[in-house]
This record gives sequence, structure tokens and C-alpha cells, in this order.
Amino acid sequence: MFLSRGVQQMTMPNLQVDPSRIVQRIEELARCSATKVGVTRLSFSEESERANQLVAQWMKEAGMDVRKDGMNNLIGRYEGKDRDAPILLVGSHLDSVVEGGKYDGILGVVAAIEAVHTLHWHGIRPNCSIEVVGFSDEEGARFHTTLLGSRAMTGHLRPEELLAKDDQGTTLAEAMEQLGMNPHHYRAAVRDPRTIRGYIELHIEQGPVLEQIGQACGAVSGIAGQSRYTFRIEGKSGHAGTVPIQWRKDALAGAAEVILAAEQMASQCDQLMMTVGKLSVFPGVSNVIPGAVEGTVDIRSIDDELRKSAINEFVRKCENIAQRRGLVCRFTEVMDSPAVLCSGHLTNVITDVLKEHGMAPVKLVSGAGHDAMALASITDVGMIFVRCKDGLSHHPDEFVSVEDIETGTNVLLDVIRKLTA
Amino acid sequence: MFLSRGVQQMTMPNLQVDPSRIVQRIEELARCSATKVGVTRLSFSEESERANQLVAQWMKEAGMDVRKDGMNNLIGRYEGKDRDAPILLVGSHLDSVVEGGKYDGILGVVAAIEAVHTLHWHGIRPNCSIEVVGFSDEEGARFHTTLLGSRAMTGHLRPEELLAKDDQGTTLAEAMEQLGMNPHHYRAAVRDPRTIRGYIELHIEQGPVLEQIGQACGAVSGIAGQSRYTFRIEGKSGHAGTVPIQWRKDALAGAAEVILAAEQMASQCDQLMMTVGKLSVFPGVSNVIPGAVEGTVDIRSIDDELRKSAINEFVRKCENIAQRRGLVCRFTEVMDSPAVLCSGHLTNVITDVLKEHGMAPVKLVSGAGHDAMALASITDVGMIFVRCKDGLSHHPDEFVSVEDIETGTNVLLDVIRKLTA
Repeated sequence: MFLSRGVQQMTMPNLQVDPSRIVQRIEELARCSATKVGVTRLSFSEESERANQLVAQWMKEAGMDVRKDGMNNLIGRYEGKDRDAPILLVGSHLDSVVEGGKYDGILGVVAAIEAVHTLHWHGIRPNCSIEVVGFSDEEGARFHTTLLGSRAMTGHLRPEELLAKDDQGTTLAEAMEQLGMNPHHYRAAVRDPRTIRGYIELHIEQGPVLEQIGQACGAVSGIAGQSRYTFRIEGKSGHAGTVPIQWRKDALAGAAEVILAAEQMASQCDQLMMTVGKLSVFPGVSNVIPGAVEGTVDIRSIDDELRKSAINEFVRKCENIAQRRGLVCRFTEVMDSPAVLCSGHLTNVITDVLKEHGMAPVKLVSGAGHDAMALASITDVGMIFVRCKDGLSHHPDEFVSVEDIETGTNVLLDVIRKLTA
Repeated sequence: MFLSRGVQQMTMPNLQVDPSRIVQRIEELARCSATKVGVTRLSFSEESERANQLVAQWMKEAGMDVRKDGMNNLIGRYEGKDRDAPILLVGSHLDSVVEGGKYDGILGVVAAIEAVHTLHWHGIRPNCSIEVVGFSDEEGARFHTTLLGSRAMTGHLRPEELLAKDDQGTTLAEAMEQLGMNPHHYRAAVRDPRTIRGYIELHIEQGPVLEQIGQACGAVSGIAGQSRYTFRIEGKSGHAGTVPIQWRKDALAGAAEVILAAEQMASQCDQLMMTVGKLSVFPGVSNVIPGAVEGTVDIRSIDDELRKSAINEFVRKCENIAQRRGLVCRFTEVMDSPAVLCSGHLTNVITDVLKEHGMAPVKLVSGAGHDAMALASITDVGMIFVRCKDGLSHHPDEFVSVEDIETGTNVLLDVIRKLTA
């Protein structure tokens, strides 16, 4: 819940963050990696402990008191004038995917520290306290279950998730014990919603929209809801040389129509993303007509109703395709995650700051998940996206220019100032 | 070369083969299998030696002298009145694919023995000698190189093929030595074209056409030429949730158009078969836009010119699809095998016999390869197809009815009689 809706309109003295310090810190964190190619910093690993030590040190230098919670989330607290007022939470995650980039997650944590560092340097004490958080696990790359850090904070982590295993068979609980933590203390990470006024996260866009419109930053209106289905199309395999085309029941030709139907539906609706990302052909031999095909379809929209009706329409289209071709097409739902809307109020504060920095008040939909998704269940959330090169993410070539880092962090600083003034 | 073009029109006494003996022999050969599921009788194996012993015994019972040639082809000779006249060769292959059916290859050998057996029983001596051949390896399932037996007979086996390895690393030469053969004697299998008047092969259709038109047998006009290409379509991978449809370069969506273009071209031309049988998607992850796709396209026609022009048209269409979508599409030829036409004369004899048996003079194109393909380089070839259930082949459920076996073998018998009278 966001308690103070009256944002102060008074002009704030112009403060500037130090972009070179941010870039230097991003490089230092990139070296906390288990691989030489890209950044691999899985949660509860030796690399993540090294990263935590660096980040804790920088938090202290920024004037913060540092603690870890029961899920290894690193929290730096910059005291406000009213120590009992609901705090503003700002941050992102410190873990990475396997062979990922330097900026995903990290930029949001380092930028938040830099913003507080700037306040501290200028002796500015906010009205409420600010807590910068580096979440221990957002990607789920190690235990294959996402948002461990932020969900522990909201109380939505399920006890059985402590038994999720990594690829070596180590459970989350065992990994926590190896770091000297008591896994059962994960409940101590839960925050009382009444003590938080909102959560702000700066993150790289991981998409090409800001690059296309030529702007360093944008606000995020929400995180798209997501459905994932597997589908299986069954036809009849046969000899590629002996079965005339008109008698075939070629499962792959049917799948081709299904793929194009998904593409066409998405291209007719701005708010809809549809992707067939995986496709396997059986038997998958050059001289055999495909008898069966299995695939996945990923459907996202910020509008849950639209997403549901698109799924129904798509299934109907696929059934028609299958029927016309004498095929059988079956769908199985494997994920249904509703859209999360950012707080209108926080988003307006962000777009106001964008305008003050000479940018258009762009609002983007996030197609990717973020810690803000989890936090939204206990508090208002707002997100700032920063342009990344070619929209590329989860890849060693992930890149954000120093100019965009500077612009994004200055925007974050001013948003924090408005929300804590 | 077929020397005697003047087929005798005199009415021949009506002879009938014994279908129960054929079926019983097919069942006996099916038990010469390395697997319990289906028939697995790879060439130069213990199972194939057992099959050879059975077949040699049946040849002898049919009045034939039996020998093996330098490539382990089993040959039974039924002497004609003129021992020096070019012989008529009749047969098919004795090997199978892995977990294949009972009829593929076998039916043609057993039917040929039965036809000769019937002549022998009735004391009919043909004008020229008949040689029934059971080729040692047509499928290539063991050494991954096809038509070993028939190509050895034509002189087109290359010496390096003796070094082809099976999946256990055993070379063809070693496998021959294990059976007590001298692999270098493979050249002794070569036949002088002047000593052969033609080759007749009865084989299951391996396709659904005879079943669809409701007839037990058909003549074969030729064996389709075949091209095989691999293709690679390159686009750009990206996050399924963050890249708007209109900016995507989805390689799988491009491939979908390619698949449908192949299907459409083939459906517009009776003489053209096109099949995309294999397709792999990279990275092949449900939440990633496919960045690349690799596949195969198999193109067949009895008309080599048509096949070539179809390939050119298809490549052009694919380039247009790729260009429109900002993709790159590359084709690599991996096979180009020209069509083989059956002898018009032999095919006319077969269709005449079909009519005498109350059937339509149907001529089919064979989309699959056969020993006749190889033999065509040294002599005239003719083929008789027998209906198989659901067009199914290379599968444990491969099935031919006893009635169709009887009809087919009677047709083969009368064709042999006409060609050797």
C-alpha cells in the first residue's frame, strides 16, 4: 500500500549520480562468475557470496546499515527522518542465468545504491527510510523455481520449495546450510505490508522497444500475464515417396498452419504476444512423412481477458486446421500466470520524472517477469526500464551504454526523492 | 538389353500357384529375425544365413541349381531349353530394415520361387533359363549404403564400400570374412549384360494407391528420381515476451511458410512428391523466439526435368519468403538420384497379364528404391506391385492378404511364362 499520495511539487536541487562508479561496480560484479563466458552467478553459490560482500560494502559506503534476511536477500537501510514511517523499497536481483549478461538485475541494485549514495553525499535525509534490496534469486536458474528471494519477502514461498534441487541434486535447504544459514528461518524474510510504502525497480528492458523509439528510459505499466501450452498434433506417418499428397495426414504441415495462425493473431493485436518456441517432429526422418509433432505456444498480454479469449480463439483455429487435414490436435496448459499492473500513482511519478529529464512519458509492458511481480502482492510497485542494445538479454553480449546508465540512475534518484520527500 | 521382343500370343494352359506354401514360407523367414518385434534381418548376419539356407532349400525343391555369388546374393537357376540364351532374372531382396515387416523383399523372392516351382511341377521347361535371385542387401540398414547386392551384380559397387561400417564398427569386408567369404571376390558377382534378357521384380507397393483403387496388383512405370536437400533458415532469437511481432525475425514462422509452400507445389502436380520430414528448432525453448531452423526436403518425380524445375521454383519461393521476413535461407543438396524407367516392353507384358487376370492395366510410379533401380543399368527391368494394407511398410504391421499374394504370384508366373516361352 502506498500511503502518501501527495507528491511534493517543489523543485528539488539538481543532483547527479556518478556513472563511472556504477560502471566500475557492474564490471566488478561481472567477475563474480562461475564461467568465463558471460556471467554465471547462481543463487547461494560461492560467486553470489562474493557478490554479496561487494554489494554490502558499497551499501555501507552509501551510508546504509546492511543486513541479510532469511532467504539471503541483501538489504541496505538508509534511515529517513521518520524511522517508523513505511519505508520505500528499491532494488532488483543479484543472481544471473547461466552465461548471462552483466546488467540484468545488477543494474537495478547498483543504481539504487548509487542513488542513495548521492543523497548521502549531499547530506539529504529523506522523510522515510529507504531500503535497497538485492534479491538472492529471481532467475530460478539454479533450483528451477523463480523469484525465490522476493517471494520469501512476500510470504508466498511454499515450504516444499526448500526441497527444490539444482542439477547436482543439492536442495535449496542444503545450499542454504552450506552458507551457514538455517533454511527454516526463511519465514523471517516475510515483510509486513504496512511497513512498506512501495517498491521501485530499475531494470534493463530485455526488449527492443526503447531502442526503436530512441529513448534511454521508460516507465512500465505492468508485467504481462502469461500462458504456456504444449500441443501435440497427430497425423499419420508414411513413406515420403509413396503416399500421394492428397492422402497424407502430415502432422508437420498442420503444425506449419498452427505456427502461422499464432503469428497472425499476434500481429493483429498490439497487446498480444504469441510464440511457438519449441517444435519436435516424429519420427523426424527425411524420407518419412511426419506422423506427429509436439510444440509449445507462449501467449502473453497485459490484459488477462484478452489473453484468455486469444487462447480460446487459437485453440478453435487449431482444431479447424486439424479437422480439415484429418489430424488430431491436443493442448495441455502448463502455465497460467496473471498480469501484474504497476501502481498508477508510482508510474505517474516515473513518467513525470521522465518528462523533467526531457523524455517522453513512455509506458511499456514488460513481457518478462521481475521481482516487482512478487512484491505487487504486498505493496504498490513501479518499474523503470533502461534501453539495452538490440533488446538482447540473458546473453554475454547484453549491453547498456554508460549514457543510458547515467540517465536511468538519475531518473531513479529523482523518483526516490519525490517518493520520500 | 531385352533380346526377344516378339512375345508369343498363343494361349498358355492355366497354371495356379499354391498360396498357402508362399504364406508358410513368409512366416518361416519372418522367424529369421534378430528382434521379437517385427523382422530384423540385417545383411551378412546369422539371421540372414539362416534365411539363405531356407531359401536355398526351397529353390532346390523348385528344381533349381543353387549358388551364391561374391556378394552373398543367393541365385537359383532353372534351366531352359537353350542353356546359352540370355536368362530371365527374377527376384528381390532377403534383408530387412530394423523391426520391419514380413513382406518387403521377401514376397518377391518367395513368389519367384513359387512361380518356378509351379513350372517345374507341371514339367514346363522354358525356352531360356530363369534365375531367381535373393539379393543379400537392398535396404542398407546394416552398413548404411543401399543396394549392395544388386549393385555388386551390375559392377557399380565401389571398392571403398567394403569398408563401410555397421553400428558396431564392423566393416562389410569383415562381416563377409566372418561368413567365410573372401570380400575381394565381390567382383565375381558382376554379370555380363549380354547374358541377361531382363529383370522382373515383384514387390509390395509400400504405398496406398492400389488399396485406394481397389486392385491387388499393378505394373510399375518407373522408380522416381529423388533429390534431398537440407535447409537452414536463420533469423534472430529473442525473448518471447519482449519483442513485438512486427520486429521479429522468427525462423520457425519462416519455416512454416516453407513447409506449406512445398505441400502446395506437390498438391498442384500429380507427378511431384515433396516432403519436409525433419525439422529442428534452435534454441528450441518455449519462451525464446526461434533464431534458426534446420530441416530436410525430399523431392521425387518420375520426370527428372520436372523435379529439377520444381527444385528451382521451390528455392525461389523460399528465398522470397526469407527476404520478406528478413531471414536467410540456405539449401544444401545431399542426394540427387535420377529416375529409372521400367522397360516399356516388360511393362506392357505385365499390364497385358493384369488384363488377362481381370484387372485394370494400372501403372504406378515407385517412390521407393528397389533392386530394379540398380539392375536397370545393365538390363531391361519390369516391376509388379502388390497391394499392402494401409500402404504400410518398414513396420511390424506390414501386411499383404493371402488373396493378393496369390493373385500377384499368378501374375508373376504368367509374366515369366510369356517372357520365356
